[in-house]
Amino acid sequence: MEGFNMKKDRRIVVAVDESKESMHALSWCLTNLVTPNSNCSLVLLYVKPPPPVYSAFDAAGYMFSGDVISAMEKYSKELVNSVMERAETVYRNFNNNVKVERVVGSGEAKDVICNTVEKLGADILVMGSHGYGFLKRALLGSVSDYCAKHVKCPVVIVKH
Amino acid sequence: MEGFNMKKDRRIVVAVDESKESMHALSWCLTNLVTPNSNCSLVLLYVKPPPPVYSAFDAAGYMFSGDVISAMEKYSKELVNSVMERAETVYRNFNNNVKVERVVGSGEAKDVICNTVEKLGADILVMGSHGYGFLKRALLGSVSDYCAKHVKCPVVIVKH
Repeated sequence: MEGFNMKKDRRIVVAVDESKESMHALSWCLTNLVTPNSNCSLVLLYVKPPPPVYSAFDAAGYMFSGDVISAMEKYSKELVNSVMERAETVYRNFNNNVKVERVVGSGEAKDVICNTVEKLGADILVMGSHGYGFLKRALLGSVSDYCAKHVKCPVVIVKH
Repeated sequence: MEGFNMKKDRRIVVAVDESKESMHALSWCLTNLVTPNSNCSLVLLYVKPPPPVYSAFDAAGYMFSGDVISAMEKYSKELVNSVMERAETVYRNFNNNVKVERVVGSGEAKDVICNTVEKLGADILVMGSHGYGFLKRALLGSVSDYCAKHVKCPVVIVKH
C-alpha cells in the first residue's frame, strides 16, 4: 500500500480571509477531515495584503499625516482580528477539540500560502476558490489555481 | 452553522486513470475522507479517450482492416479493466466496507468528469493533478485545473 500516515498527526492549513467562502472551507474541513479522534492540528492562515509603499505623498501631492498611516495600520490589524474571530466561532461550534494555531502572514496571498504550507510541512491545504471576477481571473488566474499547482501536499478547493 | 450533511451519505467521485497519481489520490481519499463508520459511497470514474474517427483509411491511404479496429477496441476495454482492477486492489487493502461503484465514461476527460460529478450530485471530487508537461499545460491547462473551476462541489487535488 502507498504510505499515508495521515490519520494521525496531520497538520491541516486552512487559508482564511474576509470571504464567506473561506469560512465555508473551514467548516467543510471540520466536517470532513477532522474526525473526533484524529490527532490533527489546524493552522488558520490569514494573509494581510502587502503593506502599501507609503510614498508619504498621495496622488495629489499632499503628504500623508502620521495619523492617516496609523489609521491604515489599525484598520489592517482589526481586519486580522475580525477574520480570526469569525474563524474561531466556526470551529468552536464543532466542539471537536482540535488544536488550532493562528498564523498571520503578509504579502502576496498565493506566495505566502505556498511558502507557509511548505515551511510547516502541512499534510493538507484547504481553501476557498478565491476566484476573481472573470477578467481578472483570465489575466491573473486565481489564488487557489496557483496554490493547487505549486504546493506539494493535497489541496482541497471548496466553493460556496 | 453552515449546513453540511456530509458525514452521512456522502458520495465521493474519484477520477482514476492509468497514472500512479490517480491511485495515490484514491488511497488518500480512503485514508482521509472515508471513515470506518461514515455512510459514504465511492464512485470510481474512468474516462476512455474519445473513440477515434475511423476514417477507414490511415494517413498513407491504406484501408484499416476490421481486425485492426477490433484490436484497438479490445485494447481500450483491457485498459479500463486494468485500471479498475488496480483501483480495486487499492480499496480492498483498506477494508473499510465502503460501497464502490464503477463508472466508465468516454470523451474528453475534463468534460466527462465535470458532467458526471453534476449528474451524480457528488459531494466531493478527488483526483490526481493530471498535469501535462510544461508546454501542453501552458497551452491547455490541466484536467484538474479545469475541474476545480467548473464543478460546484469541493475538489481535492492529490499529487504524487
